Amino acid sequence: MSIKIGILGYGNLGRGVECAIRQNEDMELVAVFTRRDPAAVSILTETAKVCKVDDVLDWKDKIDVMILCGGSATDLPKQTPEYAKYFNVIDSFDTHAKIPEHFAAVDAAAVEGDHVAVISVGWDPGMFSLNRLYGNAILTEGSDYTFWGKGVSQGHSDAVRRIEGVKDAKQYTIPVESALEAVRAGENPEFTTRQKHTRECFIVLEEGADAAKVEQEIKTMPNYFADYDTTVHFISEEELQRDHSGIPHGGFVLRSGVTGWNKENKHLIEYSLKLDSNPEFTSSVLIAYARAAYRMASEKQFGCKTVFDIPPAYLSRMSGEEIRASLL
Amino acid sequence: MSIKIGILGYGNLGRGVECAIRQNEDMELVAVFTRRDPAAVSILTETAKVCKVDDVLDWKDKIDVMILCGGSATDLPKQTPEYAKYFNVIDSFDTHAKIPEHFAAVDAAAVEGDHVAVISVGWDPGMFSLNRLYGNAILTEGSDYTFWGKGVSQGHSDAVRRIEGVKDAKQYTIPVESALEAVRAGENPEFTTRQKHTRECFIVLEEGADAAKVEQEIKTMPNYFADYDTTVHFISEEELQRDHSGIPHGGFVLRSGVTGWNKENKHLIEYSLKLDSNPEFTSSVLIAYARAAYRMASEKQFGCKTVFDIPPAYLSRMSGEEIRASLL
Repeated sequence: MSIKIGILGYGNLGRGVECAIRQNEDMELVAVFTRRDPAAVSILTETAKVCKVDDVLDWKDKIDVMILCGGSATDLPKQTPEYAKYFNVIDSFDTHAKIPEHFAAVDAAAVEGDHVAVISVGWDPGMFSLNRLYGNAILTEGSDYTFWGKGVSQGHSDAVRRIEGVKDAKQYTIPVESALEAVRAGENPEFTTRQKHTRECFIVLEEGADAAKVEQEIKTMPNYFADYDTTVHFISEEELQRDHSGIPHGGFVLRSGVTGWNKENKHLIEYSLKLDSNPEFTSSVLIAYARAAYRMASEKQFGCKTVFDIPPAYLSRMSGEEIRASLL
Repeated sequence: MSIKIGILGYGNLGRGVECAIRQNEDMELVAVFTRRDPAAVSILTETAKVCKVDDVLDWKDKIDVMILCGGSATDLPKQTPEYAKYFNVIDSFDTHAKIPEHFAAVDAAAVEGDHVAVISVGWDPGMFSLNRLYGNAILTEGSDYTFWGKGVSQGHSDAVRRIEGVKDAKQYTIPVESALEAVRAGENPEFTTRQKHTRECFIVLEEGADAAKVEQEIKTMPNYFADYDTTVHFISEEELQRDHSGIPHGGFVLRSGVTGWNKENKHLIEYSLKLDSNPEFTSSVLIAYARAAYRMASEKQFGCKTVFDIPPAYLSRMSGEEIRASLL
């Protein structure tokens, strides 16, 4: 019997989840829920239905885990607490500063509804968080470093697109190699924002737009670019399409620390990701945690969880015997 | 109130655990148990006692978690099941092939004694195992790679020391950089033993020993060296002492996989360790899992566990609120 999955929201992430389900034989996509007209939404899975999000409660007993694929800004703060009353849910809520408040709201709803809700699943938050936790627990005296990239930042690309005269744009976040090397060398460096990452923008201008003005506006944009060394390239629409249509990302989590009676020995733990598709990798993590949520629900371990609360074994299709024999 | 720790066996690993306890304010070393004459064993912690291993049962109610620091060949297969009856225990059992049988014996004893036993804790098995599990659960279609080194292999150093004419020796296991690069490039290579690692030996000869004969014997030693490209250096005792007295180690776990409806996107997960002191890092992992064992015991989650069974949050001194706010 397979785990019945629902997808709520069918953008890049929803499509990624659909693909990930296909790679997990113990799972089955039963329905995709959309705010659009279902007739206008074409999905890849022939056996699954496309439904209006308003009808989602009709599926209460037909879906084991609902994957919420909305955005963190406005969708998930409402959706996750709402649907945790009726379904086991997974989300990828990534507004770090608001996680405590989101957790509290989701926990109350999940407990009320006897469901499991796993929030902030993906790679950061998610796998990177796990590596920060393991690193800190093992090397208790040390420093943490997280670098992102090289990859496309959706938020920064959007910010550039809002500038007058910009027709389209892609922004890459790039870790500074020498900064990474200093961490790896055990130098325990302290970095300014500028020293850790650079930013690179590929811009398609509107007809007649002022390139110098656009470049100046990007480079001085507070929060997004002003604190970084930013390179701006003006390219044609064809070049943007040809060379920058992917959504790659990745990054590095490092924990550098010391051990020994006199702290005489240095250690470095490094975790890194190189991802051709940010949403598809995130989706693959979501699906592994959907399996865990299904199992925890069957054990009545209700409430809101994060990746910190879930025994790694719950993510695997294999039994305890199998993972001990093959992976330990 | 601090977690009271006992150490059974005071070699490199036992000393490492003693140092790690000092770096964890919620823990206290109360006693070290040794097969040697306690009067002849000098430890670093002034407040802890040194006791005969025969007296360990007198400490049944005075120790929260006993860290078993014996060897996997003969000590742990007996000790862990024996002491799991009386104590919560942690071991670093690393004979991969015998883990299922060790698990069964320890589980029976721990359940009988209402204790928590965590076996095979360290970095491999241990942190590397966790990364294999997470990698497989997320990227379900892909390949696993584990590389060890650069570091000192105790087993191989011992094997060389047993050769006639060898006074002392250190053996380093070294990953082949081009093999690592092929994995990182997403080529999904298949390797022979020889293609993944090389071996390097530093040998101090006995007076009048035949260097050529020793070198030949090393390079043709079945299992240990015959399947590897091995370099042999003859050095003086002073050089061995000066340049090769450390016990560094480390390695890499990589998971390379594909996602997408047509498997069109590649992903790489890489975890690596660079350790100045293999036993001290292993000890730091043991101590983090001792905290987890203490908590699981207080929740009556008795039996044998591995790193796969333990929610990451149990390793941290911080509360759920704190880790969600600071590390997620």
